[in-house]
Amino acid sequence: MPLINKLQRLYQNSKMAKKLTSRSENYSQWYNELVMEANLAENSAVRGSMVIKPYGYALWEKMQRVLDDKFKETGHENAYFPLFIPKSFFSKEASHVEGFAKECAVVTHYRLKSDGKGGVMVDPEAKLEEELIVRPTSETIIWDTYKNWIQSYRDLPLLINQWANVVRWEMRTRLFLRTSEFLWQEGHTAHATQIEAVKEAETILDVYADFAENYMGVPVLKGLKSPNERFAGAVETYCIEALMQDGKALQAGTSHFLGQNFAKAFDVKFLNKENQLEYVWATSWGVSTRLIGALIMAHSDDNGLVLPPKLAPIQVVIVPIYKKEEELKEISAQVEKITKELRKAGISVKYDDRDTFKPGFKFADWELKGVPVRLAIGPRDLQNGTVEVARRDTLEKEVLRIENIAEKVENLLNQIQKNIYQKALDFRENNTFTVDTWEDFKNQIEKGGFVLAHWDGSSETEQKIKDETKATIRLIPLNQDKEAGKCIYTGNPSQGRVVFAKAY
Amino acid sequence: MPLINKLQRLYQNSKMAKKLTSRSENYSQWYNELVMEANLAENSAVRGSMVIKPYGYALWEKMQRVLDDKFKETGHENAYFPLFIPKSFFSKEASHVEGFAKECAVVTHYRLKSDGKGGVMVDPEAKLEEELIVRPTSETIIWDTYKNWIQSYRDLPLLINQWANVVRWEMRTRLFLRTSEFLWQEGHTAHATQIEAVKEAETILDVYADFAENYMGVPVLKGLKSPNERFAGAVETYCIEALMQDGKALQAGTSHFLGQNFAKAFDVKFLNKENQLEYVWATSWGVSTRLIGALIMAHSDDNGLVLPPKLAPIQVVIVPIYKKEEELKEISAQVEKITKELRKAGISVKYDDRDTFKPGFKFADWELKGVPVRLAIGPRDLQNGTVEVARRDTLEKEVLRIENIAEKVENLLNQIQKNIYQKALDFRENNTFTVDTWEDFKNQIEKGGFVLAHWDGSSETEQKIKDETKATIRLIPLNQDKEAGKCIYTGNPSQGRVVFAKAY
Repeated sequence: MPLINKLQRLYQNSKMAKKLTSRSENYSQWYNELVMEANLAENSAVRGSMVIKPYGYALWEKMQRVLDDKFKETGHENAYFPLFIPKSFFSKEASHVEGFAKECAVVTHYRLKSDGKGGVMVDPEAKLEEELIVRPTSETIIWDTYKNWIQSYRDLPLLINQWANVVRWEMRTRLFLRTSEFLWQEGHTAHATQIEAVKEAETILDVYADFAENYMGVPVLKGLKSPNERFAGAVETYCIEALMQDGKALQAGTSHFLGQNFAKAFDVKFLNKENQLEYVWATSWGVSTRLIGALIMAHSDDNGLVLPPKLAPIQVVIVPIYKKEEELKEISAQVEKITKELRKAGISVKYDDRDTFKPGFKFADWELKGVPVRLAIGPRDLQNGTVEVARRDTLEKEVLRIENIAEKVENLLNQIQKNIYQKALDFRENNTFTVDTWEDFKNQIEKGGFVLAHWDGSSETEQKIKDETKATIRLIPLNQDKEAGKCIYTGNPSQGRVVFAKAY
Repeated sequence: MPLINKLQRLYQNSKMAKKLTSRSENYSQWYNELVMEANLAENSAVRGSMVIKPYGYALWEKMQRVLDDKFKETGHENAYFPLFIPKSFFSKEASHVEGFAKECAVVTHYRLKSDGKGGVMVDPEAKLEEELIVRPTSETIIWDTYKNWIQSYRDLPLLINQWANVVRWEMRTRLFLRTSEFLWQEGHTAHATQIEAVKEAETILDVYADFAENYMGVPVLKGLKSPNERFAGAVETYCIEALMQDGKALQAGTSHFLGQNFAKAFDVKFLNKENQLEYVWATSWGVSTRLIGALIMAHSDDNGLVLPPKLAPIQVVIVPIYKKEEELKEISAQVEKITKELRKAGISVKYDDRDTFKPGFKFADWELKGVPVRLAIGPRDLQNGTVEVARRDTLEKEVLRIENIAEKVENLLNQIQKNIYQKALDFRENNTFTVDTWEDFKNQIEKGGFVLAHWDGSSETEQKIKDETKATIRLIPLNQDKEAGKCIYTGNPSQGRVVFAKAY
């Protein structure tokens, strides 16, 4: 074998998708390998920070576009607030300081200088009078700003969102799920009445749930957090929770009714219609790149990613099957026609005509990357006017005639979108359990899934359950059935069941 | 007057656009007032950082969308790299460290703790082993990452862009033009050959120039920077330069050919087609929220912003003129029809039916905000089937019949787009001067404008000219006329004229 071919073979092997560890073998390793091998993200040279690679970022852009449109449809505008927050701001809201002024990146100096040895050192003379905190969330700086923007009821509601990076120092990180820096959106709204603010928090919860279910294909429960799990500074935290394939819960988005807490902390009052000064009512809400982690863990399998068609950066990949150059030429001409038709129908298509890789490699590669539909075309297909169509979710193949191919593919994409949602929903329903005794509770929590159980409503009980089982109350269902019962832990009376689970 | 009316009047006055300082009176004050009064941005509680308000951010989003599409059309993908860069990375590229490892925000700690007095303090035990720098630009962290992504010529070119915030500590800041934190995009590409990398840098320069001229309506000169003004670490810096109304130049975008400097600094080699290891060739390029400053200063007048229709967040505002409620109702019905037609033609429309403000106030308000076209409709217009159309650029008004109103408005928007570009171009041409003596040079630099003069090519001369006149070489024109001459400062021989100016 000539050297150049040998080198090429070596290179191909190095690029070759390693077979992933299976989910049953080691779920967490499967996840890490998948994120890396599918080119979504990787760890960076900065401990705890990730690099989001082009394919992962394309997924995030798709998510951003859908969410941003929904925010705008519901009357919100985007703005941008500073990355840095003066340290003293964090002390202004009593419970917020407890929750957020902890694992933060702190800027203490504003200049480097030469160390005289070819390197650089921090200039000790450039010390800041007041340290700056890299935002872990922006309530404080934003409410400090709103103070100047709000005087009258006519300035309300103020409905603002920001797309930004935030930093919360983490010691144990996992790509997308928990990193020191992550990307997110944070909405911060101001209202004249409590009712309006509560309604806003609920509207956004619906936007999040709609996005999770109808775009990500991930079914979610909607509910309220218990006081222990509430956002630091919130009166009430609404959340959506999804169940991952390993039986652990993942909080996919939160929307907070903040009452007048931040308005009081930053002295934001308005003149109401009755000409009286009143504190403003607030909400805040966010989802982050963590959603990508949820998406991966909800649908993917041992062959790789399974992406919902509505968010897949590439919806259809086309692979030519050929031996001779002339064959490729003829196939490519056919592919061009098909591609044109598909794009006209708004479908994103990639033609993989790389000559350095064999079809088998390409099939595995696009399976790993979760492209919903794969078309393969060979010389016989040209003769017969057909194309082989494979769907990623079920791995089923069929040979179709190329007439009306765009319509056929569109239908298939819709089917896949529905199917992966249904599969995830079936999984959740099969993994939701109702238990009434402490023994059953402990056993079930150990096995995984959502566990519906009675709880006496005390934070102390919740903490003890967590200490003993690692389970937390994921949510108190919004549409909780009123049902008298006894707390599984204390036996004290309870008005209804809440959802417990171990969580990410 | 009843109290509530009085309060309303007071509130209106507080919201009322203050008359701006005129440009001739104090250009710099005019600019600051305009940015604030037009609700584009304001200074924040964090020294040197700005808040980009919704109207300003909407403008940035429009710019982003156009640029992002252009980057993707030219084969680039987006990704995201960490905010923090290890301090040691800055020492790796010799000239880069000189240029960038200076006025930086330095993270030294990762935790706060209670100070026992209700506040928080930096936890001295949470000191980082190696300080982290908040990115002033990302060449170092990105080339450290590329090292793992590039092995073979098949991995090239690598064409990546990132939308991000960056921090360069500034003592004297101005909204949009110079702030410690700003938003930008930074492209970082890797290539197998020098020719290809140079071509990439030039392609991007063309993308930037096309954007500036055909979207922002700002004519730009294209050229190369002199060594003194070159990006730290670049072999060659391409730039576009615009002339502001006060006769000062503004660098609107740069594209750098980096040679193999960063590849060498981070040891990024690839196996070429001849099976030899070679260092990778690189480019980087960026534009920032500074473009908003350029946009404002190029077109706006003493009444406020003048926005180019292609980037205006609101292209058409409609103001109803009425006395009685029934009149408003009838006008609103008409406006609904017009709005529908305009939106169908892809025009963004706002109907300003606020009942708290008089038409005169609204006219001034939308003029201040630079909305390209204003329609006003009163009872007489309803009778006559007409509408009053005012254009922001010339402040001219005419009464038009409402038939085919969308087409008429569309034509008008195109005219405005062309007109503001032409106006800026005429201004630049009237303010570009050719001088041959040192006296003429000093005089002209003092008065402002682009000054074409001979220069002997030495950095020392350039520095002396800067010290004496504050003028810098803005660029060496890409299509420089070869013309023998003598340096205006030293009298030494020169091969052609370069462009001098005082600059932002």
